[in-house]
Amino acid sequence: MNDLFLRALARQPVERTPVWFMRQAGRCLPAYREERKEHGFLDLVRNPESAARITALPLEYFPVDALVLFQDLSTPFEAAGLDVELRPGVGPVVLPPWSGLEDAARLEAFDPRQRLDFVLEAIRLLRQRHELPVIGFVGAPFTLCSYLCDGPRESRLAQLRAFMIRRPEAWDRLASFWVDHLADFAIAQYEAGAGAIQIFDSWSGVLDPELYSERVLPYSTALLTQLAHAGVPTIHFGSAYQDLLPLIAKAGGDGVGVDWRTPLDVAWEAIGFDRAIQGNLDPAAILAGEEAAVRGARVVLDRAGGRPGHIFNLGHGLHPDSDPDVISAVIAAVRNSGLSAAS
Amino acid sequence: MNDLFLRALARQPVERTPVWFMRQAGRCLPAYREERKEHGFLDLVRNPESAARITALPLEYFPVDALVLFQDLSTPFEAAGLDVELRPGVGPVVLPPWSGLEDAARLEAFDPRQRLDFVLEAIRLLRQRHELPVIGFVGAPFTLCSYLCDGPRESRLAQLRAFMIRRPEAWDRLASFWVDHLADFAIAQYEAGAGAIQIFDSWSGVLDPELYSERVLPYSTALLTQLAHAGVPTIHFGSAYQDLLPLIAKAGGDGVGVDWRTPLDVAWEAIGFDRAIQGNLDPAAILAGEEAAVRGARVVLDRAGGRPGHIFNLGHGLHPDSDPDVISAVIAAVRNSGLSAAS
Repeated sequence: MNDLFLRALARQPVERTPVWFMRQAGRCLPAYREERKEHGFLDLVRNPESAARITALPLEYFPVDALVLFQDLSTPFEAAGLDVELRPGVGPVVLPPWSGLEDAARLEAFDPRQRLDFVLEAIRLLRQRHELPVIGFVGAPFTLCSYLCDGPRESRLAQLRAFMIRRPEAWDRLASFWVDHLADFAIAQYEAGAGAIQIFDSWSGVLDPELYSERVLPYSTALLTQLAHAGVPTIHFGSAYQDLLPLIAKAGGDGVGVDWRTPLDVAWEAIGFDRAIQGNLDPAAILAGEEAAVRGARVVLDRAGGRPGHIFNLGHGLHPDSDPDVISAVIAAVRNSGLSAAS
Repeated sequence: MNDLFLRALARQPVERTPVWFMRQAGRCLPAYREERKEHGFLDLVRNPESAARITALPLEYFPVDALVLFQDLSTPFEAAGLDVELRPGVGPVVLPPWSGLEDAARLEAFDPRQRLDFVLEAIRLLRQRHELPVIGFVGAPFTLCSYLCDGPRESRLAQLRAFMIRRPEAWDRLASFWVDHLADFAIAQYEAGAGAIQIFDSWSGVLDPELYSERVLPYSTALLTQLAHAGVPTIHFGSAYQDLLPLIAKAGGDGVGVDWRTPLDVAWEAIGFDRAIQGNLDPAAILAGEEAAVRGARVVLDRAGGRPGHIFNLGHGLHPDSDPDVISAVIAAVRNSGLSAAS
């Protein structure tokens, strides 16, 4: 088994820097786009066989060191009794529209081992078939709940911030519901065979440090603490500017995933060298072609400086127009860099 | 004439902090929503009488210290020979779709005094009718050009970053075209009677400092320098985390508009106390109701500390669901705060 990713996440020495890409099992792969001609996104997500097959699809194109589960952050919504529709360019939408975030009463408690077994089964299939770690994931409470709001992303995030400010008790009920259920779901993924769980707080970067500290940090901390107690290796990914990074790190995670706006060395210092770091090439560098992408990847590796605990990734998900050949070239650059550093 | 805004922008002492709101003349006003039942957005924008009337509409609800022109960043596209459609939740879209940013050849040189006279005429009407400064505006080259790309905002911005990295010469041609035409248009707005011009780099916050320095700073600097030479007072608004703020400030502007994520005192130190600052209440605070909004406004005023050169505003545009009564309460808080500081 290739355990480079897991060893790097534990900050053990590795022969070379492990590499995977957020959204590697998706729209940038021609074989995936073929699948989508026949099947809806949510149908693929809900079928363990399809989800496992698509999760492993990247291996037909490039040699990543971990497989990130083909799933969606919104998957737990249906388990909680909500109907979900995926809209192009918008993301998951709850139907009928959520009538104000106050109605947490619409959420039904659920056992992820029953209601989300299709996810766990996909993980089991992957572990039988591949000698690579599987990365499961859940949304952080803030980012997950933004998908309960209606409208364009910027508007959703403003509505959620307003709700957290105006109704701290109602937000506490909502966020606490998700902390417990997401922890349960994440632990179930780990027990099904996932090597690590990534917690996606993809939109945390819209928060000022004070609001993050008061209304988001407690819930992300509670989630990550439950996972730590269960022995689950975690990556805490957030969009964050430099001043927010220490707070994201404070919430927990064996590793912290950082976006591209803070240079990796500056980010690592901000989160602390006692943590692993994942990132952080700009996804736009992949769109800019092989030469620019490889140059950008080398800058990231230089900034990591060969220190144990770096997992190479982008600072956000792969853009759908990313060319698999450019991704391959970036992986080759990361692999070669590791060999030369070890020599 | 109420010249508080202009004096604060020049960092002269003022009796109280001036206040206006980005998007104050728009969807949060019931009277505006009535107008929109009868007329399309672009029809209103293109008609000087309508644009002037809507620009002044906020005065029926709350006493702002400046009127920001009811217009759109994309207005100059049509003058350059492009067709534009406004899509809800997406923003302006160029039709037929821009076939790669390389085709700057599609842009026709234009004289804003002819092709955009409807904007200038709206400014002239406003100056005849109101004793308040009119704020004109243009997009910064980076933010404006993002609207030439297709797709959701995040995708547009990734495509534009990739283009800037991959094709620096083509980007130079495109950005230089806009620097010259935007400067010309902004100067024409000033000559028509605008008291100041705001340069909107609303999406600059997606750039890492290196890419901003190499591919964005030169063009924003060129634009702001042309305006400075023409004697036009300017506010340079960018979305920016703390590390990007000194670069935004370096590009120019008598004042720098900052978003809500960096506390105002920290932001002011980052841009330099020799510049005016505009901002920076989170627009979500307005959605959170009167008490939270007023509390947030007081925090911003405390951080400004009564130093000359602060213009109160939000850190981004007003959300469409903002309640005019809450906006009024915030304005009252800013006005009262100024009086108590002067006593």
